Amino acid sequence: MTKNKSHTSLIVDALQYSNWSESIFRQMNNGGVAAVHATICYHEDFKEVINNVIYWNRLFERYSDLIFQGVSSDDILKAKDDGKTAIIFGFQNCSPIEDDIGLVEICYSLGVRFMQLSYNNQSLLATGCYENDDPGITRMGRQVIKEMNRLGMVVDMSHSAPRSTLEAIQISERPIAITHANPSFWYDAIRNKSNEVLISLGESGGMLGFSMYPHHLKNKSECSLEEFCGMIAKTADLIGVENIGIGSDLCQNQPDNIVEWMRNGTWTIEKDFGEGSVEIPGFPKQPNWFRSNLDFIKIIGGLRKIGFNENEVDRIDGMNWLEFFEKSFGPANKK
Amino acid sequence: MTKNKSHTSLIVDALQYSNWSESIFRQMNNGGVAAVHATICYHEDFKEVINNVIYWNRLFERYSDLIFQGVSSDDILKAKDDGKTAIIFGFQNCSPIEDDIGLVEICYSLGVRFMQLSYNNQSLLATGCYENDDPGITRMGRQVIKEMNRLGMVVDMSHSAPRSTLEAIQISERPIAITHANPSFWYDAIRNKSNEVLISLGESGGMLGFSMYPHHLKNKSECSLEEFCGMIAKTADLIGVENIGIGSDLCQNQPDNIVEWMRNGTWTIEKDFGEGSVEIPGFPKQPNWFRSNLDFIKIIGGLRKIGFNENEVDRIDGMNWLEFFEKSFGPANKK
Repeated sequence: MTKNKSHTSLIVDALQYSNWSESIFRQMNNGGVAAVHATICYHEDFKEVINNVIYWNRLFERYSDLIFQGVSSDDILKAKDDGKTAIIFGFQNCSPIEDDIGLVEICYSLGVRFMQLSYNNQSLLATGCYENDDPGITRMGRQVIKEMNRLGMVVDMSHSAPRSTLEAIQISERPIAITHANPSFWYDAIRNKSNEVLISLGESGGMLGFSMYPHHLKNKSECSLEEFCGMIAKTADLIGVENIGIGSDLCQNQPDNIVEWMRNGTWTIEKDFGEGSVEIPGFPKQPNWFRSNLDFIKIIGGLRKIGFNENEVDRIDGMNWLEFFEKSFGPANKK
Repeated sequence: MTKNKSHTSLIVDALQYSNWSESIFRQMNNGGVAAVHATICYHEDFKEVINNVIYWNRLFERYSDLIFQGVSSDDILKAKDDGKTAIIFGFQNCSPIEDDIGLVEICYSLGVRFMQLSYNNQSLLATGCYENDDPGITRMGRQVIKEMNRLGMVVDMSHSAPRSTLEAIQISERPIAITHANPSFWYDAIRNKSNEVLISLGESGGMLGFSMYPHHLKNKSECSLEEFCGMIAKTADLIGVENIGIGSDLCQNQPDNIVEWMRNGTWTIEKDFGEGSVEIPGFPKQPNWFRSNLDFIKIIGGLRKIGFNENEVDRIDGMNWLEFFEKSFGPANKK
């Protein structure tokens, strides 16, 4: 962390799941995005995730001038220096480890650095935010958190229910993350987080990434940049400016059948609309101030305008995530 | 059901997981056991269960003079007539359907007629009896129960937690089963069932199979036949003699590493002892009056001695299960 920063902000986005392409990777580079936590699993089992890793290996090979796989905080600094973007693998669900705790280490070895313990529904480890009731972390969940702590894979509770999230914060011996969600004091969506959860997260040294997915925004697609940055300022007051960052949840160029798959996977015969509805079943329109990786500069402007100083803007845009990655990725006793 | 019964009782055992062999199949035949619900899954995923089906297909081929696969109540009557034993497939866990509801019908097509919604731990569908808290049937669980009802695969809640069990009884449009457990009013083991659960089960037309696994017995391996039959008499008073049968949980000739695998699967790194302990980690000794399929005759004797009439003994020994299979296996509107 003593490395000199260049004059521009280091930008880290703690969640994207776009329809990956050369054009998007170029936007990452041109937008100054040093690192993106890219989702490589929503519902996939182990073998299906392996196929996704193979897919990414081909992308890394083909677009080696734009992207590479990031597994450490040093990789993010290298990306910044080289003008490239480090892609960090993460799971939005624990489905790839199936019912085998031994697969956690296998996935870590393949570079996976984040795993959500549940995605909307009950998992073998924790409860999702759409279940009626939340019994907290399961017996297997306690074992898996311990294993993730040992290896240095971040527990992500973005789509989990409140009690499970509070228990994960408590049980985990290393700080956890909510990579992409907003506070419910600002907009009371089922995916957004209560003050109790956010305060507990902040006190434990965890990180919250602010989402720009319209269903998590006040006034949804019509949310203004000023409203968004105002929410960030209030959250900084609540949990500390050192515990917040961006997790845009950008799903650029994805067709609507992708959000249908995210919601339904293979768990239901009846159709589930999640945060959408029969009337609005597809992806909502992005707010006009955040449509691609070129738009982080607008957020930086908005943060300055709302009154954050340069150091605070740097923290929110990427330095907080960088520090979090440094202490979270890999074994705790690595130094 | 109008078919003439022969002069001896029709015996059905609603749960066994033995180290299958010609000798055990001969004991089934010689003990007059017309049908056994055989566990083909504790922790296996879909492909692993397929391997178990292939294994059973080889057994059916090799020992066709002793056993065959049973998928309907008619098969049980045929087994009785032919002096053979019908083997009915069942899962003690929902792991074979993984996270894919479409696999329920695939497993039904392969002859699976029972599936537990959880085995000790939290599953994607329901909570197991060893978890600290029980939030009831999950979102996926509701979908899967509906699918099992449609197909005619029995919901089995033997290893599930109380609230999940009560909700399964309520949600399922067809009667469910607790194939192997005893009442906790008799012996308060974590796997035994409360009066609330048993009464709800009986009122819904469900079935309880009495277990002779020592950890479910008062005085464990030392439990007497009289105590066991006395418990059956009290349960008949509580929920009706038409809702009870045998589910012996016989694990004949199994080495101790099998019970270790049942308890630990691949979900934990720390060793779990389940109903056992560090001191007694293996299979407990069977009570001296029930050690193989030759011993059902002793139970029949015990039931007569405790005061059940012949019709009641017949019901408990097999006719109740036969009637339950008739209404439970296959589509509800099949006739």
